[in-house]
Amino acid sequence: MSTPLPTASIITIGDELLIGQTIDTNSAFIAQALNQVGIWVRRRVAVGDQYRDIQEALNQESVSSDLILITGGLGPTSDDITKPLLCDYFGGKLIRNQSVLEHIEHLFTQVYRRPGPLLERNIKQADVPDNCEVLPNAIGTAPGMLFRKDGKIFISLPGVPAEMKKLITDEVIPRIVKECATASIQHRTLLTAGAGESILAEALTNFESALPKNLKLAYLPKYGMVKLRLTYIGESELTGKALLDEQFLILSETIQQWRIAEEDIGLEVLIGNWLKEQNKTMGTAESCTGGSIAQLMTSVPGSSAYFIGSVVSYANRIKVEMLGVKEETLQTVGAVSEKAVREMIEGGLKRMGTDYMVSVSGILGPGGATPEKPVGTVWIAAGTKDKIITRQLNLRFDRSRNTTITTHQCLLLLWELLKTNEG
Amino acid sequence: MSTPLPTASIITIGDELLIGQTIDTNSAFIAQALNQVGIWVRRRVAVGDQYRDIQEALNQESVSSDLILITGGLGPTSDDITKPLLCDYFGGKLIRNQSVLEHIEHLFTQVYRRPGPLLERNIKQADVPDNCEVLPNAIGTAPGMLFRKDGKIFISLPGVPAEMKKLITDEVIPRIVKECATASIQHRTLLTAGAGESILAEALTNFESALPKNLKLAYLPKYGMVKLRLTYIGESELTGKALLDEQFLILSETIQQWRIAEEDIGLEVLIGNWLKEQNKTMGTAESCTGGSIAQLMTSVPGSSAYFIGSVVSYANRIKVEMLGVKEETLQTVGAVSEKAVREMIEGGLKRMGTDYMVSVSGILGPGGATPEKPVGTVWIAAGTKDKIITRQLNLRFDRSRNTTITTHQCLLLLWELLKTNEG
Repeated sequence: MSTPLPTASIITIGDELLIGQTIDTNSAFIAQALNQVGIWVRRRVAVGDQYRDIQEALNQESVSSDLILITGGLGPTSDDITKPLLCDYFGGKLIRNQSVLEHIEHLFTQVYRRPGPLLERNIKQADVPDNCEVLPNAIGTAPGMLFRKDGKIFISLPGVPAEMKKLITDEVIPRIVKECATASIQHRTLLTAGAGESILAEALTNFESALPKNLKLAYLPKYGMVKLRLTYIGESELTGKALLDEQFLILSETIQQWRIAEEDIGLEVLIGNWLKEQNKTMGTAESCTGGSIAQLMTSVPGSSAYFIGSVVSYANRIKVEMLGVKEETLQTVGAVSEKAVREMIEGGLKRMGTDYMVSVSGILGPGGATPEKPVGTVWIAAGTKDKIITRQLNLRFDRSRNTTITTHQCLLLLWELLKTNEG
Repeated sequence: MSTPLPTASIITIGDELLIGQTIDTNSAFIAQALNQVGIWVRRRVAVGDQYRDIQEALNQESVSSDLILITGGLGPTSDDITKPLLCDYFGGKLIRNQSVLEHIEHLFTQVYRRPGPLLERNIKQADVPDNCEVLPNAIGTAPGMLFRKDGKIFISLPGVPAEMKKLITDEVIPRIVKECATASIQHRTLLTAGAGESILAEALTNFESALPKNLKLAYLPKYGMVKLRLTYIGESELTGKALLDEQFLILSETIQQWRIAEEDIGLEVLIGNWLKEQNKTMGTAESCTGGSIAQLMTSVPGSSAYFIGSVVSYANRIKVEMLGVKEETLQTVGAVSEKAVREMIEGGLKRMGTDYMVSVSGILGPGGATPEKPVGTVWIAAGTKDKIITRQLNLRFDRSRNTTITTHQCLLLLWELLKTNEG
């Protein structure tokens, strides 16, 4: 990865990022957008709302990056100090921008419908350094700003994710494409399940040692699966595509026994596409996951075409009344049992009238354990009226991670069932 | 914030962080843990799997930070280059650590139950630089490593969140507390709803200008609410506590009309605690949110004491069959209507037998809009058998953010209802 590509740094500003109160999701979006136009993000730096630290970051990042993206610190409150600093740093002075002011007035009167005159602090958001190019923020009050210094481009954007995203897509990327001689960065990702990192790496030893210089393989474990990502970085889009086509095919064949999908796709999309194509429907009967499988499935736009609904039977009473689980089952083997998840499938299919059903019951922790069923004991099932498959999980993480893994393992089990019903 | 506290930098390693494939959640955890023992995180830096970039980050961060935490790059696959680099950087050489090796053998045979002999690449995880202090990783194969150079402490940890967290808690923090003369960083956070950042800032103009030097106020907008965080950074824990007590009281009174809670607490915890204290139960009847309210409520350990269940009626058929919404309602005013969410409350209360119920039906986008009901039209309700309150939302974001905001607005509405039923 030593091709002379245009490189970028992302600087995020805000104490909330340094005390762990907020997780930075902006940088991931920006990095993806820059990658797509052939710009390699070398570094991401988060600094607090401190003049000296922001200044130091600007100095350091401009040494080796061609493009410096800054997010945050542009709000209407006094903990935001970015704008005065940018004035000092680039030697400009604040002037009121009439078109930004009109836009702010429009937002407050027409969109937010806030009564009364504009506050002084909102009017001040229309003040921008006189040596920047203003990037209009269609859905918020703080505009983006583009500066140039010593052949480098600096772009400052608000930290509100929706506003930042729209500015990147509509204003930043088109300008960058026009100005930077962009190279080519291409990724191709393969999704696997059923083998850990070391097993995969063992199977791929020969593949990796024979990999051409400008290709790189990465292992990304996630939710009990492993993504394999092949990246090309180089000058030619065509060469990159050809190399990736060739090597990706070998990669995919080498690990085919664990292959789930040949793209970086969520199980919720993979399953959704399959159901849509086959014109089938599904639902979920969830206990310990509390609706998280339903939530993941419906996070996909258009999922109403195949996702019918869910019964979250957190209390045993609901398992009996709304899913037809037998009292006897609960009293003999308990709610966390193969029998219970089977009955949840049967009841769910009957009451929701779907083609497929997923069910789950378990103890995700920290409480709820019994001598026979420690924390992490989970039963999952997937079924149709003709066939039900079940599996027991023994998880060993915290509640939140146990929930996420269980959710994905349920969808993997459903995927297994869908594949056996194919063709 | 210019007190001479021990300061830290966090370096995260991995191309996946730079191409936007992975969102860094590790840093937030580390920052919180360090803050609690009086160490201020100055900077967080993410770099790729490149020797030179990692080296540069180590050089830069050790200039002004006392403690440098490094995560990632320690896996068993060849894209992980951190360990050789640490050898070069601190002038050590790799030696096999017997106790780490035994631990790895134990994990593979007893915990993972993997058949056959250890792979060479797993054995190599027991190789550590001979000049580091080994920090045992109880739940994973890659140990943590502590180095000292020029009066600074460097700690390298695996990137797997569960392993990193356990190492921070069990190994890193106890060592740091013993070694660093820790100062005091204290935060107090207040949760508000119903006013934007500028309105709050306007109400707090006098408060902010009278704030003592070592206190700082931050505004953190989230899910349609705003958190106000007051931070003390200084040398004395007692002075800090006294100052915070005094100023937080004024802050809280000044904005009391928008105050929801006097701590940094999620609505799901706030509501859960209330229900538990009053010995009441709740359930949800969700359409467009697809189970996300149930999922948020059940993310709290012990929520089975008050959360009974949920019907996710994504298809209209389920609204009728499982929640008793009238066919006539769907045909006249439609599923996205005040009438429908009222009937969902009534049906939900009856079928699930809870004291409280929340319901929601809306169009979160990008598809599903009609001329009368644009994307972002959402009806929400909260009710008991005696009283139902409803509200219409008009959201203007993408599907994912619309879902999150709707989820929180539903819980805010429920909170409003709970407060009127108090005492």
